[in-house]
Amino acid sequence: MGLAALLVVLAAIYIAAKGLGEAAERLGQPAVLGELAAGVLLGGSALALINPAEHTLHILAELGVLILLFEIGLSSDLQQLLRVGLQSLVVALAGMLFPFLLGWGVMAALGYSSITSIFVGAALTATSIGITARVLADMGKIGSPEAQIILGAAIIDDVLGLVVLALVKGLAEKGSVSVGSVVGMSLLAVGFFAAAVTAGQLLAPQLVKIASLMRVRGVLLVSCISFAFVLSAAADAAGSAAIVGAFAAGLVLARTDRRVHIQESVRPLADFFVPIFFATAGAAVDVRYLDPSDPQRRQGLLLTALLLAAALLGKWLSGFFAYKKGTRLRRSAIGIGMIPRGEVGLVFAGLGLATGVAHADTYAAIVVVVMLSTFAAPPLLRAALG
Amino acid sequence: MGLAALLVVLAAIYIAAKGLGEAAERLGQPAVLGELAAGVLLGGSALALINPAEHTLHILAELGVLILLFEIGLSSDLQQLLRVGLQSLVVALAGMLFPFLLGWGVMAALGYSSITSIFVGAALTATSIGITARVLADMGKIGSPEAQIILGAAIIDDVLGLVVLALVKGLAEKGSVSVGSVVGMSLLAVGFFAAAVTAGQLLAPQLVKIASLMRVRGVLLVSCISFAFVLSAAADAAGSAAIVGAFAAGLVLARTDRRVHIQESVRPLADFFVPIFFATAGAAVDVRYLDPSDPQRRQGLLLTALLLAAALLGKWLSGFFAYKKGTRLRRSAIGIGMIPRGEVGLVFAGLGLATGVAHADTYAAIVVVVMLSTFAAPPLLRAALG
Repeated sequence: MGLAALLVVLAAIYIAAKGLGEAAERLGQPAVLGELAAGVLLGGSALALINPAEHTLHILAELGVLILLFEIGLSSDLQQLLRVGLQSLVVALAGMLFPFLLGWGVMAALGYSSITSIFVGAALTATSIGITARVLADMGKIGSPEAQIILGAAIIDDVLGLVVLALVKGLAEKGSVSVGSVVGMSLLAVGFFAAAVTAGQLLAPQLVKIASLMRVRGVLLVSCISFAFVLSAAADAAGSAAIVGAFAAGLVLARTDRRVHIQESVRPLADFFVPIFFATAGAAVDVRYLDPSDPQRRQGLLLTALLLAAALLGKWLSGFFAYKKGTRLRRSAIGIGMIPRGEVGLVFAGLGLATGVAHADTYAAIVVVVMLSTFAAPPLLRAALG
Repeated sequence: MGLAALLVVLAAIYIAAKGLGEAAERLGQPAVLGELAAGVLLGGSALALINPAEHTLHILAELGVLILLFEIGLSSDLQQLLRVGLQSLVVALAGMLFPFLLGWGVMAALGYSSITSIFVGAALTATSIGITARVLADMGKIGSPEAQIILGAAIIDDVLGLVVLALVKGLAEKGSVSVGSVVGMSLLAVGFFAAAVTAGQLLAPQLVKIASLMRVRGVLLVSCISFAFVLSAAADAAGSAAIVGAFAAGLVLARTDRRVHIQESVRPLADFFVPIFFATAGAAVDVRYLDPSDPQRRQGLLLTALLLAAALLGKWLSGFFAYKKGTRLRRSAIGIGMIPRGEVGLVFAGLGLATGVAHADTYAAIVVVVMLSTFAAPPLLRAALG
């Protein structure tokens, strides 16, 4: 895409995202719902103005989710995250196990093959942290114990989701996986976050100190952004997810004495980049899958409805595994916070289609479940936490 | 370029640009000189870490120069620009005529063909406003009458530079140009700025008012950015330069009552994007052209030296055509402010090579003159305005 076309597309994204975001807000819904709807409107199934697969737009969207997670990290409290760490781990594991079992069960009951059933179950496991984090931030609830458990669980979930993806990919392509490589991958991915936070806590105060001594403009912001970008690239290289690095960077910079300054200057960057992420996420949705007047689609609606129930129920149940001594947790809200699926679910769907493990009906069902879970979570979460 | 590679490249750009920018500042030089040097260091002639022709980086750099000009527009005073409009026009025309005549004269005297001489003369005409605007901003001198004349002249220059490019392109490819198309292009390009400012003055207050009524976050910033992007795309479509649209957008938004708020939120965006522009501009420089130990290059050094003299002298002389009643203008500073050449000069050089009008020696000479003018202007300007 050339520059002039990109400028028009970005302006269209901002106008639609803020317009529909405002409408959502006035209707008592989270603004992010409007931004997703803006993406659907601008995407292939309606105006066809934006193509989320286009390279430059995709890169800007990826920068958007990194900056979002960096900003969320900056507003989070490492001490509290660690305090709720065990709850988060339990919720994350339960939140992967239940959707997997339910999804697998639905498929097996409908007579699908064992490998297809495993594949669909796995596709329902990974939470999309972006949506939930944004809703929590918009509601000013990032600091609540529920939000911290959700964030921790979603981070763990994101990391484990990549491990599951690698596992299922091996299974689909070769029919088997090596246990050693799975264990190695898991340790590397989980270990990265601990290493990044530990090393980051030593480096971040030095970075902020050096930036304070410099006279040229914008040093503090670009130093912190560089730190977040390097940690993101390192996370990616370590076999973890890039957003884990961005979140870790925000988390350790939040503990420096320049936290407020950093937050203030990151905010306009987030305002610029984050709507691009949500709009392209919305644009990836093809509304034709939801057309009940098409007889070919009607058959798939049962499958879709059952998988959607599995996806919602599985995550909702996981919230009840959260327990914190002396605190009355809204466990329902925790499970609901884990509901949104996103990119990883769509990656599973695409991979299934490519390897022949999933056919067109299963593919469509996964895509619809991913998008409905994404649209359903914000209002449900708002109701549960509100 | 994939996401992880881009993240590392951006972090490298920020670290090198701010490090060398700080060094330049401590040595009493403008920070932008350090950012350009960072680009040379990271570019093909040294570390080869960044490739300015890579699509994503190029797009981010283009967004950088648009946001820079938008920010400069926000700090400019439309009334004052119009008051100095005539001076700017005279300086712009003189600043295109002298370098053209001197460049053409040097080439003709050295025995080059008539078409090559015209081509090289034309390549020396277009000022790169980015460098000068940044130096003026860093010095806090954007509001001075000299700066306003320079900015006005550079804007006119940028627009006329594109007309000259179209003219020379037609000449090189077909051996002739249609007078009608040149006149039409000139009118369209110059008329765009007037139309954009007139229409913008009506729209900008409405835009700011609507944004103020909305509750979702970041509305004012992305509304203003959308406005700037749409005007930039319109400028491009109208046959003018995109940066003219961005500058016009800043200019009219500066006259609204939210000017300070807009400036505050655009600042971090500029901090993020602008160093990418200067670093890639530096990375386009190939320092091997400056190696006097290479006998093949030594022959070209005379040509280069003469063209550099033509480029510096031609723009410097143009400053003396500025005249403002009742104001003692530092005319030297105005001419020096017009010295930096940039992208358009490099486009001329590339076009010359592609059409066979310029051979390797002439190409190298133009590239070296463009880069030396860029590096020479900031310290000279600082000295002249200081």
